[in-house]
Amino acid sequence: MKKIYMDYVATNPLHPDVLDAMMPYFKEEYGNPLSLYPPGLNARKAIEGARESTAALINAKAKEIIFTSSGAESNNFAIKGIAYALQNKGTHIIVSKIEHHSVLNTARFLEKSGFAVTYLPVDENGLINPEDVKKAITNETILVSVIHASPEIGTIEPVAEIGKIVKEKGIMFHTDAVSTVGNIPVDVETINADLISFTAHQFYGPKGAGALYLKGGTRIVPLIYGGIQEGGRRAGTENVPAIVGMGKAAEIAKRNLQTRMDHVTPLRDKLINQALTVENVFLTGDRENRLPGHASFVVDFIEGEAMLLLLAGKGIYAASGSACSSKALKASPVLISIGIPSHRAQGSVVFTLGEETSQEDLEYFNESFPQIITRLREISPYAKGWEGTEDASCTAKK
Amino acid sequence: MKKIYMDYVATNPLHPDVLDAMMPYFKEEYGNPLSLYPPGLNARKAIEGARESTAALINAKAKEIIFTSSGAESNNFAIKGIAYALQNKGTHIIVSKIEHHSVLNTARFLEKSGFAVTYLPVDENGLINPEDVKKAITNETILVSVIHASPEIGTIEPVAEIGKIVKEKGIMFHTDAVSTVGNIPVDVETINADLISFTAHQFYGPKGAGALYLKGGTRIVPLIYGGIQEGGRRAGTENVPAIVGMGKAAEIAKRNLQTRMDHVTPLRDKLINQALTVENVFLTGDRENRLPGHASFVVDFIEGEAMLLLLAGKGIYAASGSACSSKALKASPVLISIGIPSHRAQGSVVFTLGEETSQEDLEYFNESFPQIITRLREISPYAKGWEGTEDASCTAKK
Repeated sequence: MKKIYMDYVATNPLHPDVLDAMMPYFKEEYGNPLSLYPPGLNARKAIEGARESTAALINAKAKEIIFTSSGAESNNFAIKGIAYALQNKGTHIIVSKIEHHSVLNTARFLEKSGFAVTYLPVDENGLINPEDVKKAITNETILVSVIHASPEIGTIEPVAEIGKIVKEKGIMFHTDAVSTVGNIPVDVETINADLISFTAHQFYGPKGAGALYLKGGTRIVPLIYGGIQEGGRRAGTENVPAIVGMGKAAEIAKRNLQTRMDHVTPLRDKLINQALTVENVFLTGDRENRLPGHASFVVDFIEGEAMLLLLAGKGIYAASGSACSSKALKASPVLISIGIPSHRAQGSVVFTLGEETSQEDLEYFNESFPQIITRLREISPYAKGWEGTEDASCTAKK
Repeated sequence: MKKIYMDYVATNPLHPDVLDAMMPYFKEEYGNPLSLYPPGLNARKAIEGARESTAALINAKAKEIIFTSSGAESNNFAIKGIAYALQNKGTHIIVSKIEHHSVLNTARFLEKSGFAVTYLPVDENGLINPEDVKKAITNETILVSVIHASPEIGTIEPVAEIGKIVKEKGIMFHTDAVSTVGNIPVDVETINADLISFTAHQFYGPKGAGALYLKGGTRIVPLIYGGIQEGGRRAGTENVPAIVGMGKAAEIAKRNLQTRMDHVTPLRDKLINQALTVENVFLTGDRENRLPGHASFVVDFIEGEAMLLLLAGKGIYAASGSACSSKALKASPVLISIGIPSHRAQGSVVFTLGEETSQEDLEYFNESFPQIITRLREISPYAKGWEGTEDASCTAKK
């Protein structure tokens, strides 16, 4: 059976050259990077090399990169770290309603600790209006955090414009760029952010390696206290192989960024155009300002989970955007925020493409997807309409 | 040149069988463990298998294991997580003066956030007196955290006895068991702890994989918010290869624990006995209640860093216990706590042994170590005594 991986937005396969670069650090170069003996010094040198190439991917300085274990850790670190560092200056934080759970739930935690949080709305395409950011800012505002692109609906936010507004007010600006770094150009000079979260496994690097860009001179309170690793800002014995892998993946991503975008963009367009020919299939997210390999839909009268299982039965591995994960049962706050009622949000599905996706894969997909929808609708109790369910209004568009 | 790794307490080499177990998860099994398609389900199954064997190493239930990225993260998570969960009940925390920096600095952070912290003294061998714990407990006490064994001086603390006292008062008990789990028997039934931090690279597992044992039914506030990974208690895409590696390393450690202890204990004793024949070399830490592969000394009239460099020149890779790491310049709080004045603490050195340490290595070491001391004392300005330096009293013992 054909096997087509279409969940690149969840995690990427590891690039073989990245694994090769990591291997010595699983074997002979196992020394503690803080030590003075040769194997430790080699590990230290490898980490600093990885820091250089990770920084280069976003046009930052090496010393502005703090390695973490994941994008979620980077988001928690950025938001709590700035909140605690600046709490004497103010206690108001602004985030959008379509942030990742690692931002939203951190914001909720801070609310319980005495901070006030404004949750910015988005339009039906998931776009934040920079004017809304401007209006939400008060004298108490210390931090604005806006996602660069939503992994659920693919919409790329106007972060440079938002950053400009935020920086004019002298407020800290963080962006969760987990879905964008390594996938579209991200440049710290143009993005106007003081903090940027990203992670290696979104650009063919290893799991377990994330980073936080922290603009030079920015004070932050650590999330993980301990030794002097990462300049005393993130403790714990360094995960040397993962960091080396992140560096190598960043180097490759920088070199291949345009090629990768040029590869997936037309495949994505083909997929979207084809899927929208199926009755009652609606695109979610913005058609133009969109991650290059990202196609997401609401398929009415069908449950996302059933779709995923039948797709998997045909060797197509995709994700449901109905929640942060397949096992979380609540309707996605992102879909709710763009005006999709919860019963329709259950029918969401996300297909994401990458280096290994081929024209042939797309043809197979375009053949299989309508068949699966037809089959599921034959057995769906709602196939004739949403009668008896809650609000059936539709903001997703054809 | 001979190369002898004697810094097992900093990090262990990866066991080849562990790396083998990890490899499929760097290659074909790269799927998101929360997904519904086969590669993701395989990853999920691998994580749950690793959870079983990690739990078995400390006689816990699988559901009581939360995977983290390091021992430092586990310590931060445990202490902040319990402090925040119980802050309405009380705001007093007790730790010892010889905790790891990840505990001490977390305690200091909480002090700034309105918690009160008692730092328990230790005796000249680094032992905590359980009676001191009893005396320090107040009606406000919500957590006691005591290190199981010090990586700097090797002393194993009477945690079972301390745990008994703490639990009789209905207070949460955490132990940082990073240096002990996988190295000596650790059993949650006898240790009386509600939370235990440990990490894989201390028992021939990979870096980047830690765990927190959290006794069933214990409420904790997450350190890393986000998705529903680890039961919603620790977010972030799972580092599947590292977790699988931790599981495999735990399985091997459980099987080989006695053999490993029987291997290093006599080597350690030989090393200690031999080193103490050298003039003005003193053992630090307890002679009896001691990690099996751990030998630590203060070598008077010599700087630890110079010793490490000359040792490395002879292919002997060791650590200075004068700080949490070679690059931190402050005198170690642990050595100060056992009564060693800071000028003498500079001459500390830690040798730790493991599976690959041989009798032959020990002979080479026993030959080289006195030579290096002699050579350094020839050029040391203090070789005739500490005249002109601060407090020269000595509590380390021959």
